Amino acid sequence: PFFTSSALLHYLKKKLVYDHKKLIHSLKVGVALVLVSLLYLIDPLYEQVGENAMWAIMTVVVLFEYSAGATLGKGLNRGIGTVLGGGLGCLAAILAQKLNWVGSSIVIGATIFIFGAAATYSRLIPEFKKKYDYGAMIFILTFNLVAVSGLQGEKVLLLARERFATIVIGFAICVFTSLLVLPVWSSDELHSSIATKFEILASSIEGCSEEYFKPVDGKSNEVTRSLDGYLSVLNSKAKDEILGNFARWEPWHGRFGFYHPWEKYLHIGQLLRELAATNLSLKGCVCSPRQPSTITLRCSIKEPCEAAASLLACSLRELGDSIMQMKKCDQGELILAKLKATCFKLNTSVSVTQLCATENNTDGLAMATFVFLLMEMVD
Amino acid sequence: PFFTSSALLHYLKKKLVYDHKKLIHSLKVGVALVLVSLLYLIDPLYEQVGENAMWAIMTVVVLFEYSAGATLGKGLNRGIGTVLGGGLGCLAAILAQKLNWVGSSIVIGATIFIFGAAATYSRLIPEFKKKYDYGAMIFILTFNLVAVSGLQGEKVLLLARERFATIVIGFAICVFTSLLVLPVWSSDELHSSIATKFEILASSIEGCSEEYFKPVDGKSNEVTRSLDGYLSVLNSKAKDEILGNFARWEPWHGRFGFYHPWEKYLHIGQLLRELAATNLSLKGCVCSPRQPSTITLRCSIKEPCEAAASLLACSLRELGDSIMQMKKCDQGELILAKLKATCFKLNTSVSVTQLCATENNTDGLAMATFVFLLMEMVD
Repeated sequence: PFFTSSALLHYLKKKLVYDHKKLIHSLKVGVALVLVSLLYLIDPLYEQVGENAMWAIMTVVVLFEYSAGATLGKGLNRGIGTVLGGGLGCLAAILAQKLNWVGSSIVIGATIFIFGAAATYSRLIPEFKKKYDYGAMIFILTFNLVAVSGLQGEKVLLLARERFATIVIGFAICVFTSLLVLPVWSSDELHSSIATKFEILASSIEGCSEEYFKPVDGKSNEVTRSLDGYLSVLNSKAKDEILGNFARWEPWHGRFGFYHPWEKYLHIGQLLRELAATNLSLKGCVCSPRQPSTITLRCSIKEPCEAAASLLACSLRELGDSIMQMKKCDQGELILAKLKATCFKLNTSVSVTQLCATENNTDGLAMATFVFLLMEMVD
Repeated sequence: PFFTSSALLHYLKKKLVYDHKKLIHSLKVGVALVLVSLLYLIDPLYEQVGENAMWAIMTVVVLFEYSAGATLGKGLNRGIGTVLGGGLGCLAAILAQKLNWVGSSIVIGATIFIFGAAATYSRLIPEFKKKYDYGAMIFILTFNLVAVSGLQGEKVLLLARERFATIVIGFAICVFTSLLVLPVWSSDELHSSIATKFEILASSIEGCSEEYFKPVDGKSNEVTRSLDGYLSVLNSKAKDEILGNFARWEPWHGRFGFYHPWEKYLHIGQLLRELAATNLSLKGCVCSPRQPSTITLRCSIKEPCEAAASLLACSLRELGDSIMQMKKCDQGELILAKLKATCFKLNTSVSVTQLCATENNTDGLAMATFVFLLMEMVD
């Protein structure tokens, strides 16, 4: 039993270091759930809100997301959707109450159909969906519930107000635990994920060049390392867009202002993905069976290529650092000049080439120069 | 007024042709909402279900997704989550009812915290999240609601049973309108999206080769066409994965069996993305200012390159067709042999090259051969 418990402890410790953000998030959700359950557990509170406390619990469960931006965005969506849907639903219910039974049923049925179909259609428009998908869903739900409840002769306005109040309580608990206690910011994640991509690509380019000019034995190790790197960059579009979307909802905090240019991050991400695609070709080239197998032929172009690769990696790292620390890259002009010079040297020294790797390298260099120019504009 | 109404009609007609799937989906949601609202509107039904009809409406609004697979997946998740959460919640409530007030409050609070945190943590594990994210959320919600309701001395079991019954009603309405009336299958979409990617890449490769061997004027038109194509392929990973995920939930229908190999679709998608990345390099190469500006130099390699590009495009189309029609590509061996021959010819005829386009083309060809070999395994 001692062995297993110590192994368990060790495992938990490892987990704790590795996944501590996830663990903290889980514990925060637990705390928020207990807090909102107090509405039921403490009798005086329960007498105030009654069965509507259910809506507060629902709000907490549904709204509490991993990052602060996601929680806020969902919460605001839910608020807007509830107010709009509730308002229109009340209007429809009041209108219907003035008619006889058949008339009111038809009116309610028709408005539910029209608003439901229209809101669903708007959810399928990509630009709208990106930001307000959840709000539209809540709109449909609230409108429908309020409209039909009104038909059953309840005090619609009172009911709507009480539910809204409990939703606000749930939202407040969410914001409190999500934003004030150890928050996880999407903006931080986007910022550092973009900055680390530079590092990944840099080491991947270095790996390729090392691989190419190395003796033939012990090949497999290096290759897999670089392969993993650029593939993760290549496939990062969806994740970046989600983070960028959440980051827009996040208020001023830390080093980020209200109007931080998140679109530029996404733009840089796109350029890095194109660089990663070029890197994939370079990699395919290095591993191609069509390459000359003799080392001597490869070595004839070793020097300028290695210089180019290391300079490229170096400038990528420099750029990544300057983005990470959010300061203007002061050696910008210098690096740009160096890159151009190396590019020229590479071009002249391997002008009559038989190896595609070098050509591809030039290509990668050209890409990098392009990326670099854009980076200059951003910083 | 005549003009505006005719313009509106024209607009609607255009929309109808272009977006008819989206429109149909919206109308289906409207119908489902009206159907579920009948629980409120028809008095005998309302007397049966009472306020719990709310849960049926909620189920329809939340579950009804664009494709059948998504609706089914969410519905099954919701079912599993509700049963598990409700069962455990009942147990906790019954256990707590035997204790005094303070004891039961502590028990309920502690179980809510533990289950809430554990379920939230499991939602952060990528493999679990992919399939059961929604189910875990519903589990937390149901557990929490049932556990606290029990504390307020209501008849927990009865309440849980009634709510579950209305959720089943809502789910049945969803399945009826989503699957039986003009269903949209994710599997169809995944299938055709993979097949069209072949076509997109084929025309993009043709575009590049045309572009390269064309007189200098009238350049911009062709370039943008091919650029759009491979970029959409390059960034399709997330969309494919979502579709593949939904497709797994869909039952046997049309040409697809129960155990259709959806992972292979995703694998082919990955290979096509790598081909698209090579295409991006080729494109960068064609547009590079470092290319020789004289037509004569380009024309010296025109013939083998054009032959290679058109053969490549042709075999991609062939493969796309064979996937679209789900039959084994009978000319597989033939195409493979042809590709190899062209590859060899290209290699010998441009052995001392100064143009990187050709080299890249070879590279693309090598990639295609690779893709082709894998395709052979799949079909």
